[in-house]
Amino acid sequence: MSVSDLSIYFATSNEHKFNEVRGVLSASRIKIEHLMFKHNEIRSDSLEEIAFEAVNAAYVKLKKPVFVEDTGLFISALNGFPGTFSAWVINKIGSKGILKLMRSEQNRAASFKTCIAFSDGKDIKTFFGECSGAIANKQRGKSGFGFDPIFIPADYKKTFAEDTKTKNKLSHRHQAVLKLADFLIRKY
Amino acid sequence: MSVSDLSIYFATSNEHKFNEVRGVLSASRIKIEHLMFKHNEIRSDSLEEIAFEAVNAAYVKLKKPVFVEDTGLFISALNGFPGTFSAWVINKIGSKGILKLMRSEQNRAASFKTCIAFSDGKDIKTFFGECSGAIANKQRGKSGFGFDPIFIPADYKKTFAEDTKTKNKLSHRHQAVLKLADFLIRKY
Repeated sequence: MSVSDLSIYFATSNEHKFNEVRGVLSASRIKIEHLMFKHNEIRSDSLEEIAFEAVNAAYVKLKKPVFVEDTGLFISALNGFPGTFSAWVINKIGSKGILKLMRSEQNRAASFKTCIAFSDGKDIKTFFGECSGAIANKQRGKSGFGFDPIFIPADYKKTFAEDTKTKNKLSHRHQAVLKLADFLIRKY
Repeated sequence: MSVSDLSIYFATSNEHKFNEVRGVLSASRIKIEHLMFKHNEIRSDSLEEIAFEAVNAAYVKLKKPVFVEDTGLFISALNGFPGTFSAWVINKIGSKGILKLMRSEQNRAASFKTCIAFSDGKDIKTFFGECSGAIANKQRGKSGFGFDPIFIPADYKKTFAEDTKTKNKLSHRHQAVLKLADFLIRKY
């Protein structure tokens, strides 16, 4: 069987993520289906633990090859906040809240990290991506989603929300998806 | 059997909470034991859901009457942040972070809420307490723990950390513990 004949599901409740990941995988001729997946994730400071538990739950529901993705923004000066709780934090205090917390903070270092976990019911595999950078002084740009308007990747001047091309090339999620694609092409 | 002959466990990893709750229950001649309980709580915006799941896990471990307690600080202007993630948020950004988020915010309304869940393996009962108030403009006082230095109960001027007596009389946790005591005295 070729990977292009395969039905692989991406279990997520976030449509932005689905579209971003579908774009990357289609370049490798891997088609994905969307499993609208609302799941009560575990609490953990480890993206891997969260993704591992979630993909198990998704496989139990679906019984077909499936992957999940968990991403967090880890800010050094805030002890890794918002980290694995990024999605929850953005709904509560938004990028505006992060900028308030970072006001007059000199150390602006931050990393976006992604873990993808894939399961076919026998094996579970995890794939990682990371993008280092800095928190901007104000929101800039309209594209992307989440904390994109306040994140500037290292060696660049624009935020992810100002420069989608750079985001798609460098991003934590992009890196992890490429590793997933490589694994799927070898496997099927 | 009288309630004073009973061994009831409070499952918590927070020694401050244990001491506070033991003090309230001892006035009703209810003795409690400490089960040092590190548990990966579920993610939920409901204290009740979190406490319910946690007391089940504690009972499975202990097989004796046991209760757990979950408390959150819900700030109106921050859409309920830090809410059920209060313990995690305090470790990351502290009271200082909350004050930064609230800087120049006129609406300072906030509530502390507690849910206690008790299980004897047959029944699970939940008990609630709530204390309304406001977020102070700066940290004041040294007693208590958590967000006590920035919380001023309604109709008072001092923070919980400046006035332990008022805290012990009014607090969310105190109210919930009194309901638990009342239930235990009726039951045993």
